[in-house]
Amino acid sequence: MVNGGPPGGGRQAIWEQIREALREDIASGRYAPGAKLPTEAALSDRFGVNRHTARRAVAALQEAGLIHVRRGAGAFVATAPVDYRLGTRTRFAQNLTDAGQTPAREITRLETLAVTAREAAHLEIAPGAPAHVYEGTGLADGQPLTCGHSLFPAERLPELPRHLRESRSVTEALRRCGVADYTRKWTRLTAERATGIVARTLRLPEGAPVLCALSLNIGADRAPVELGRTWFNADLVQLVVDEKSFPGA
Amino acid sequence: MVNGGPPGGGRQAIWEQIREALREDIASGRYAPGAKLPTEAALSDRFGVNRHTARRAVAALQEAGLIHVRRGAGAFVATAPVDYRLGTRTRFAQNLTDAGQTPAREITRLETLAVTAREAAHLEIAPGAPAHVYEGTGLADGQPLTCGHSLFPAERLPELPRHLRESRSVTEALRRCGVADYTRKWTRLTAERATGIVARTLRLPEGAPVLCALSLNIGADRAPVELGRTWFNADLVQLVVDEKSFPGA
Repeated sequence: MVNGGPPGGGRQAIWEQIREALREDIASGRYAPGAKLPTEAALSDRFGVNRHTARRAVAALQEAGLIHVRRGAGAFVATAPVDYRLGTRTRFAQNLTDAGQTPAREITRLETLAVTAREAAHLEIAPGAPAHVYEGTGLADGQPLTCGHSLFPAERLPELPRHLRESRSVTEALRRCGVADYTRKWTRLTAERATGIVARTLRLPEGAPVLCALSLNIGADRAPVELGRTWFNADLVQLVVDEKSFPGA
Repeated sequence: MVNGGPPGGGRQAIWEQIREALREDIASGRYAPGAKLPTEAALSDRFGVNRHTARRAVAALQEAGLIHVRRGAGAFVATAPVDYRLGTRTRFAQNLTDAGQTPAREITRLETLAVTAREAAHLEIAPGAPAHVYEGTGLADGQPLTCGHSLFPAERLPELPRHLRESRSVTEALRRCGVADYTRKWTRLTAERATGIVARTLRLPEGAPVLCALSLNIGADRAPVELGRTWFNADLVQLVVDEKSFPGA
């Protein structure tokens, strides 16, 4: 039987008491984020209940988003999604470092192409003018967190591809091109189904919901320097807009 | 044949010229947002091409997100999603009015309950203290755009339910409770699959991707006044964070 329940716990059903005990185990770190929960059989033994009761408690934890059940593999404690701040200076590497993770970038494509009319309007260049296209994956502790592509006006930033290849950092590559600082003019967010290359890159099943951001970065002279589209694995990251997003507001 | 293509259009395949002609028709408003595109047969006639070629142009428009193909009904010009600004003062009615739409709110639930430990931490009240729970739907031009629920600290705002019922405006109800102004402390965004009541309320198929925001509003004294969870129909709205989000930044 379950011991040490909260005052008034006598009104709770057994499965609710087990749910609360497991919730505390997760909150206290006995079962750490990403760890496998004991099997229903083991939980039945531990709490002295039948498997139906243990299953009901596990199902309630799943519904609350505290655990993820993977078919055939068992139940795992949910990992808290990383906070990724959107703001005046939105920096991939800095955001992950702030969250205690190790950032890395993989470049999957780097070439120079003519922009469409819509891209040209965002970048404030002529339709058909050249832009460097950068496609890549953003990793946190080795796990794909984001994927996407960016366009950089090529006439303004002719040497950018070389600097991107060498530094694997947009901030550093722009700096080497003379853009000492840049700020986020706007971000437009939507939710989409992961399909094709996005699903494969983020290691998500086809159709899984992903956050999608279209964004424009501008230099100190307010000329656009980067038009980006980024997909975020919504299981691993949440986008945060808060008072630190816009210092001085 | 397609006439009046852009200079250099001779290098484009016929289907690409048709795609560009249709793109201009959409941009110019000849085919307005939400309107049905002519059938492939009609497009074949108009451009003097076979149906395979017309179909390829339509498929390219679909891929670009300019049209939506509904099985058995035809192709429709995509409606541009409404910009919904997140910022210091995030106001449902004002955001929709700015977008030229008529806002409305339906209240589906209004009662007073004890908060959980996590809710209490956000609202800076004691666990188990009472909060007014408001569940509702946000409509734009009569179409459900958002649904969600908010918690308001009941001891601080005892008369809120009455004012909410009367005014159907959170801003107005808070004002009548003495909260003349409130600001957004933070918003946390994720993408989810619409299920159950969210899918039904937003009139989306089960599993459709939706944007989900958890947010905290505070009064001028910085005490929390509203903890909200909102689901947005991602086909109809995109969330915007830009320089107007935080005036003075």
